[in-house]
Amino acid sequence: MVYQLYYWPTIQGRGEFVRLALEEAGAAYVDVARGEHGMKELMAALAAGDHPSFAPPFLKAGALTIGQVANILLYLGEHLHLAPRGEAARIWTHQLQLTIADLVAEAHDTHHPVSSDAYYEDQKLEAKQRAAEFVKTRIPKFMDYFAKALADNDYLNGAHVSYADLSLFQVIAGLRYAFPKALARAEKKQPALTRLFDRVAQRPRIAAYLASPRRLPFSEEGIFRHYPELDH
Amino acid sequence: MVYQLYYWPTIQGRGEFVRLALEEAGAAYVDVARGEHGMKELMAALAAGDHPSFAPPFLKAGALTIGQVANILLYLGEHLHLAPRGEAARIWTHQLQLTIADLVAEAHDTHHPVSSDAYYEDQKLEAKQRAAEFVKTRIPKFMDYFAKALADNDYLNGAHVSYADLSLFQVIAGLRYAFPKALARAEKKQPALTRLFDRVAQRPRIAAYLASPRRLPFSEEGIFRHYPELDH
Repeated sequence: MVYQLYYWPTIQGRGEFVRLALEEAGAAYVDVARGEHGMKELMAALAAGDHPSFAPPFLKAGALTIGQVANILLYLGEHLHLAPRGEAARIWTHQLQLTIADLVAEAHDTHHPVSSDAYYEDQKLEAKQRAAEFVKTRIPKFMDYFAKALADNDYLNGAHVSYADLSLFQVIAGLRYAFPKALARAEKKQPALTRLFDRVAQRPRIAAYLASPRRLPFSEEGIFRHYPELDH
Repeated sequence: MVYQLYYWPTIQGRGEFVRLALEEAGAAYVDVARGEHGMKELMAALAAGDHPSFAPPFLKAGALTIGQVANILLYLGEHLHLAPRGEAARIWTHQLQLTIADLVAEAHDTHHPVSSDAYYEDQKLEAKQRAAEFVKTRIPKFMDYFAKALADNDYLNGAHVSYADLSLFQVIAGLRYAFPKALARAEKKQPALTRLFDRVAQRPRIAAYLASPRRLPFSEEGIFRHYPELDH
């Protein structure tokens, strides 16, 4: 099976959580919108079919079209062996993923607190207020939570990597880019998260992916944006 | 099995999506924090156990503790027959639920765009800006999406009710409370959503629940708040 991922072609964004899972599994996939006429294909596919997505990313897997990052990962977790099989651990992995999704949404809203349609430059003052709370209370609260979930284990579920580990790696990478000062503090307090980050980054397929041109750079077009005035 | 739901005792909030599923299924459950010493039990349970939740609601189901609304509903959907069994329809139901969760988060942020910790009164100007976009573009976009998903069917999955229908009912109820003008416009454009709302409200167990003291009222403490200045 060749998976088809539909996501914006120039940013990591929410699509990156899916890319990391596909890469770790060594799955065959096409990043559709990055091909020729890809944006046209993306926009056409977005509104088509019985199960349209509200927004990218979405994944075509044979006859299925699956939207929402956590839902895509739930599916891939099962089919690509990136999640535990037992019910309790499977549910827990998904719970962690949904909590990561909440953190990602909050990270986005630091630079767009008032309007997703307007420019950052038009909501800089409000962004500064929102980011202050994010940096001071939200990042530490989320990082403490994930460190507690990780405990002394290699991965969130113990010895075996899951899609939630890949996503936690990506969130740490994104927050390091966007809020380097705040993340340095958080990781100093929770060194287990740094170890998790390194462990994921060194997995052979992830390391190869990160070094490849398939890995897009972070930028001020994505979810994690580095505006120095928001980082304290 | 008697389920134990842990959620804030005085608001519908995110817990209501779980309550509606338990009620529709006729499940035996305790709304823990609404009992004597309930808040103490809630706070103690929140940080306890191997699988703690980042925030309420969470559900105890035998030996399992499950956090995140969509995750709880995924579990209850399977165990209480509130979701289709086939993979494609099961995934689609969860996708709709996660999209509803996005809408709920956006509805919350209309009155708290800058800080979740601060009062609405301290961010009224920013709330007015954020709500303007929510009312003008986001509500119509979400409502059009769900109406398209519903099409001419009785329920989102066809003939049988699922947890996503109950959640869509709750979102419509909440938006009607918070943004009556905007919702009247949206429902006029998408009468299928009004029919879905009525169909859910008239299900015997839901009707009995809505008429009971178990159903808390909407208020300006919850997610859906009626501030007339935000509704256009």
